[in-house]
Amino acid sequence: MIDLRSDTVTRPTSAMRRAMAEAEVGDDVFGEDPETTLLEQEVADRLGHEAGLFTPSGSMANQLGLRLLVGPGEELLADVQAHVVRAELGAAAVFSGITTRTWASDRGRLVARSVEEIAEPNAGAYSVSTTAIAVENTHNFGGGTVQPPDQVRAVQHFAREHGIGLHLDGARLWNAHVASGTPLRQLAGGFDTVSVCLSKGLGAPVGSVLVSTAERVAAARIWRKRYGGGMRQTGILAAGARYALREHVDRLAEDHANARVIAAALDVDPATVDTNIVFAEVSDPAAFVAAAAEGGVRVMQLGRTTVRLVTHLDVSAEDAEQAARVLATLPR
Amino acid sequence: MIDLRSDTVTRPTSAMRRAMAEAEVGDDVFGEDPETTLLEQEVADRLGHEAGLFTPSGSMANQLGLRLLVGPGEELLADVQAHVVRAELGAAAVFSGITTRTWASDRGRLVARSVEEIAEPNAGAYSVSTTAIAVENTHNFGGGTVQPPDQVRAVQHFAREHGIGLHLDGARLWNAHVASGTPLRQLAGGFDTVSVCLSKGLGAPVGSVLVSTAERVAAARIWRKRYGGGMRQTGILAAGARYALREHVDRLAEDHANARVIAAALDVDPATVDTNIVFAEVSDPAAFVAAAAEGGVRVMQLGRTTVRLVTHLDVSAEDAEQAARVLATLPR
Amino acid sequence: MIDLRSDTVTRPTSAMRRAMAEAEVGDDVFGEDPETTLLEQEVADRLGHEAGLFTPSGSMANQLGLRLLVGPGEELLADVQAHVVRAELGAAAVFSGITTRTWASDRGRLVARSVEEIAEPNAGAYSVSTTAIAVENTHNFGGGTVQPPDQVRAVQHFAREHGIGLHLDGARLWNAHVASGTPLRQLAGGFDTVSVCLSKGLGAPVGSVLVSTAERVAAARIWRKRYGGGMRQTGILAAGARYALREHVDRLAEDHANARVIAAALDVDPATVDTNIVFAEVSDPAAFVAAAAEGGVRVMQLGRTTVRLVTHLDVSAEDAEQAARVLATLPR
Amino acid sequence: MIDLRSDTVTRPTSAMRRAMAEAEVGDDVFGEDPETTLLEQEVADRLGHEAGLFTPSGSMANQLGLRLLVGPGEELLADVQAHVVRAELGAAAVFSGITTRTWASDRGRLVARSVEEIAEPNAGAYSVSTTAIAVENTHNFGGGTVQPPDQVRAVQHFAREHGIGLHLDGARLWNAHVASGTPLRQLAGGFDTVSVCLSKGLGAPVGSVLVSTAERVAAARIWRKRYGGGMRQTGILAAGARYALREHVDRLAEDHANARVIAAALDVDPATVDTNIVFAEVSDPAAFVAAAAEGGVRVMQLGRTTVRLVTHLDVSAEDAEQAARVLATLPR
Repeated sequence: MIDLRSDTVTRPTSAMRRAMAEAEVGDDVFGEDPETTLLEQEVADRLGHEAGLFTPSGSMANQLGLRLLVGPGEELLADVQAHVVRAELGAAAVFSGITTRTWASDRGRLVARSVEEIAEPNAGAYSVSTTAIAVENTHNFGGGTVQPPDQVRAVQHFAREHGIGLHLDGARLWNAHVASGTPLRQLAGGFDTVSVCLSKGLGAPVGSVLVSTAERVAAARIWRKRYGGGMRQTGILAAGARYALREHVDRLAEDHANARVIAAALDVDPATVDTNIVFAEVSDPAAFVAAAAEGGVRVMQLGRTTVRLVTHLDVSAEDAEQAARVLATLPR
Repeated sequence: MIDLRSDTVTRPTSAMRRAMAEAEVGDDVFGEDPETTLLEQEVADRLGHEAGLFTPSGSMANQLGLRLLVGPGEELLADVQAHVVRAELGAAAVFSGITTRTWASDRGRLVARSVEEIAEPNAGAYSVSTTAIAVENTHNFGGGTVQPPDQVRAVQHFAREHGIGLHLDGARLWNAHVASGTPLRQLAGGFDTVSVCLSKGLGAPVGSVLVSTAERVAAARIWRKRYGGGMRQTGILAAGARYALREHVDRLAEDHANARVIAAALDVDPATVDTNIVFAEVSDPAAFVAAAAEGGVRVMQLGRTTVRLVTHLDVSAEDAEQAARVLATLPR
Repeated sequence: MIDLRSDTVTRPTSAMRRAMAEAEVGDDVFGEDPETTLLEQEVADRLGHEAGLFTPSGSMANQLGLRLLVGPGEELLADVQAHVVRAELGAAAVFSGITTRTWASDRGRLVARSVEEIAEPNAGAYSVSTTAIAVENTHNFGGGTVQPPDQVRAVQHFAREHGIGLHLDGARLWNAHVASGTPLRQLAGGFDTVSVCLSKGLGAPVGSVLVSTAERVAAARIWRKRYGGGMRQTGILAAGARYALREHVDRLAEDHANARVIAAALDVDPATVDTNIVFAEVSDPAAFVAAAAEGGVRVMQLGRTTVRLVTHLDVSAEDAEQAARVLATLPR
Repeated sequence: MIDLRSDTVTRPTSAMRRAMAEAEVGDDVFGEDPETTLLEQEVADRLGHEAGLFTPSGSMANQLGLRLLVGPGEELLADVQAHVVRAELGAAAVFSGITTRTWASDRGRLVARSVEEIAEPNAGAYSVSTTAIAVENTHNFGGGTVQPPDQVRAVQHFAREHGIGLHLDGARLWNAHVASGTPLRQLAGGFDTVSVCLSKGLGAPVGSVLVSTAERVAAARIWRKRYGGGMRQTGILAAGARYALREHVDRLAEDHANARVIAAALDVDPATVDTNIVFAEVSDPAAFVAAAAEGGVRVMQLGRTTVRLVTHLDVSAEDAEQAARVLATLPR
């Protein structure tokens, strides 16, 4: 089976497994796991932030970041299709008491004006004030969209001007970096908190990292324990992640090329395929998913008339071509 | 001073005060206040629902309604300018763990397609499912907008089809009723929970009522106590509200006429003035508010380039004309 | 019927109703209700605090106070029978995320050592730290117990030493004041936040007041709106409360005398009747409640083998004697 | 260094690492990780429950269990020193809105009467009802105390009679099993939800398992994602845990023997050392910790006058004797 449902399905390679098997470990709840500490610092450095925190999932990294920026009863603005509002099961509301309003977009692409129109900075005592804005880069449900730098800058300018916090959901920031050629520090700069995922395109088995100031990360460490995210000998996982950081970032370009192959087979406009995610309109998603599976290709329904196809570490160029051949024949 | 900031500033009339002074009272936390019990039943009857619950504010009535429809971590959809998401200080998130996504609109006017486009009924285990939709009629920040009946019906049809709950924020449902001539039962029917306010246009000093099924109202009664909304000898307040229900509903037509007078003075398109609220664009709201006050008219800034003017029980036709004269002369 | 279930059942007197009917009012959400502002300042002055906030219930006053002292995920210590943990329906947990541990006591009487034994000030990053302690004076479920001043002082000393906040649930602080002769300022001093109730022994129809620093009260005002406790023309209620403050404090001594009459009839140890609340052990509370009601006396079951009897404004000395005669004859 | 601070510091053995390195993996968020699925079923079977769920920590397993039993605003009773109230940073309150009252105990030993005295089953609409009771076996802060079976049965009987839920924090249930010889199914039976930890005495690097009915576990799976506990290729961790289950349960007897050696050196009453945890009274815990460290033994201050010493997989009989020699010489 060629599995295009998600880039979360990647399995650790032999070399990565070896790195994990040999990892030096300690009790990370006590801050004594050397691999994890190295990983946290390494990611923080790469992203140009002060400190990092390893978490069991991207959702937890996002939720810790949001919580540090937005108090209970305060407001976060996000794209109506953002992962933080659609795919984290309301965690920001139920755990942090954060209220959200959302702006619409074309395929998740940030337009600063859309944000500014609904923002209510310092709204006084009777209305809710906007305390933070979340940006997602690349934008998952938008189709792996790389955010336009000028719009990001405009939102950052607006936020700074009004004392509004900024969170970057960078689960696939590596893809944005590789696709755009923009340095990671530039992509992650200007945000107060940034999450990046290690177990999507990078292929590590488990984990994300939240980066921010040392002070915020210290607070996040306590909240991580409260969420039940304090794990013990995480060096095993961190070693896999560190291997992935060394070996699997640049190769994301292959995933992007493979995604274009898939997109072409489905007559998807290549201009809508920035990175490794393809959304295709089909009349009957459930039937399409079933037919693809019969042809040896797993895809995922996401939305009432769309399927999502994602390339990743475990999909070779040959796999992509084979999947393209199968998909091209299916009724849409 | 002619106070056009809000219809919440009305003061009880002498006759209303008399009704309050003579009210029979009991301990309403024990369900023994006769006036309150009568009020609750009366409002429920008028709105065609089974039971009612008196609350200290419209916010609490809304929040109780939402909580009964939406569980922690579940999703409510609302207009991006809805009172429940903008003006209740994030209560749905912080107290009930409800996550929200919002649709845009032209002056709060409901368009069913906008709702359906973002709704995610029964989204499965990985994404948040839409559990309820909130409609506001009339729509406060939209400018007292009366909701189009066909769009309301379309949303109700969509919601029923997908098992989605429906809350009506009817703080000013009385205005919608008087302006449109549509019976209250028709306006409030098809919603699972409805809040109406007694201390806005109706002129009672304090209170709102939530109506729904007897079962939901029984649950809301317990949650009301948890919110700290269980009050004792509320008959005093309920008697004022019952007086208002008898005497102050039909006269809302005068407020609507007065609003049109104000609107005309400010060159506001009369087609945007459905009821008792006027929004006017001004270049410098703070300066406009100050200049109006010097002329004896209080108005409120609401938004970065708008002021709000609201007519009500304490604004006579003469007051409205006087205010219009003052406002017409001000630089906008 | 002589109603001894609670001192919340009192009805406003004619004089109080007159004061309410004539009250000057404004929109208190805008801070423009003169009677309410006077009431808030008056209560703050009497209790020796900087500012006050009127709330629809004692529960809301307590919950606002606790929220200001204790952050989400932090710990409050309280008596295992405290109103804030037993009778406010878990509000501190569900709305403020406050976790509680409790100490046992003899009839609610504070023993500083019991508090100190379980307190965990500054517990570090792995355990929950004690952030505040709640004291209740008089102690309702303890039987109207007046707290021993030396134990209160010892707890205050301990709290100050460790940077722990202190909330006083003073719903019936007026009774403690009258029974002990200790000035209110002395009883309320040394606490960071204090709630007092106006609709229990004092006989006002609705409301409590939270007092604290001006800064905390300003924050509480915003949170009160979030809870749905922002009411409009509250001057009606505040006028009743101000009348009660003038006329109904000293007369609480009569309630205390009446309680002793009731206690004697039930062979309750007079040493356990500090104020206006009597708890009596009975073998079958439900049967006792029913039998008393047949004799024209309403009492309340509270606990598996106890009934509570409370004297108040609407129970005269004659009523108390009549109730005593009835109760003395009932099988216990 | 001989590390007696906690049994969480154990490092995976070579054989365990081998099992992990060879683990077959899949995406566990999609329910496709074979090792994890096997682990979950295996633990459920051993404990006599229907289904299991792997979590990143014992705290998350406990919190998921509690949440399934207790609704927002409802009450959980627990020992005043229980891990769920002292060491999970208020998670039950902040994330689930659960209010807690606590009973005192001698070293965590369960006494059914203490629970029954404070329980308030079905308390009606005005007071909080007790919805669940948490039992901890062995009891960590009580000193590794094995719960007396008759008291557990009495609490279970009381709970069933009143419709109260029961959670077992069995982080160290393996120790209770080995120390008492009682079958695991008997220890875990009669509870609605049970958590067990794999990374304490058992020596796996990461993870706990919650067991309950299939229905509750399905709900817990969704909530686990909401908490950010949904991890991807967890087979690596699960393989370590399965190895530990096979090889490291029976050997806990050695830890218990070693704990008695340590206890003897510190003149701790052996009757207070049921399993692998020793609490010793010392006059200056910080000084004691420092002096022990100089002698090559790490111990942890826990409480104002106590230190905790825990034996585990990485402490051999020789280590225990060496530690005993060092500790015996230290000033207490």
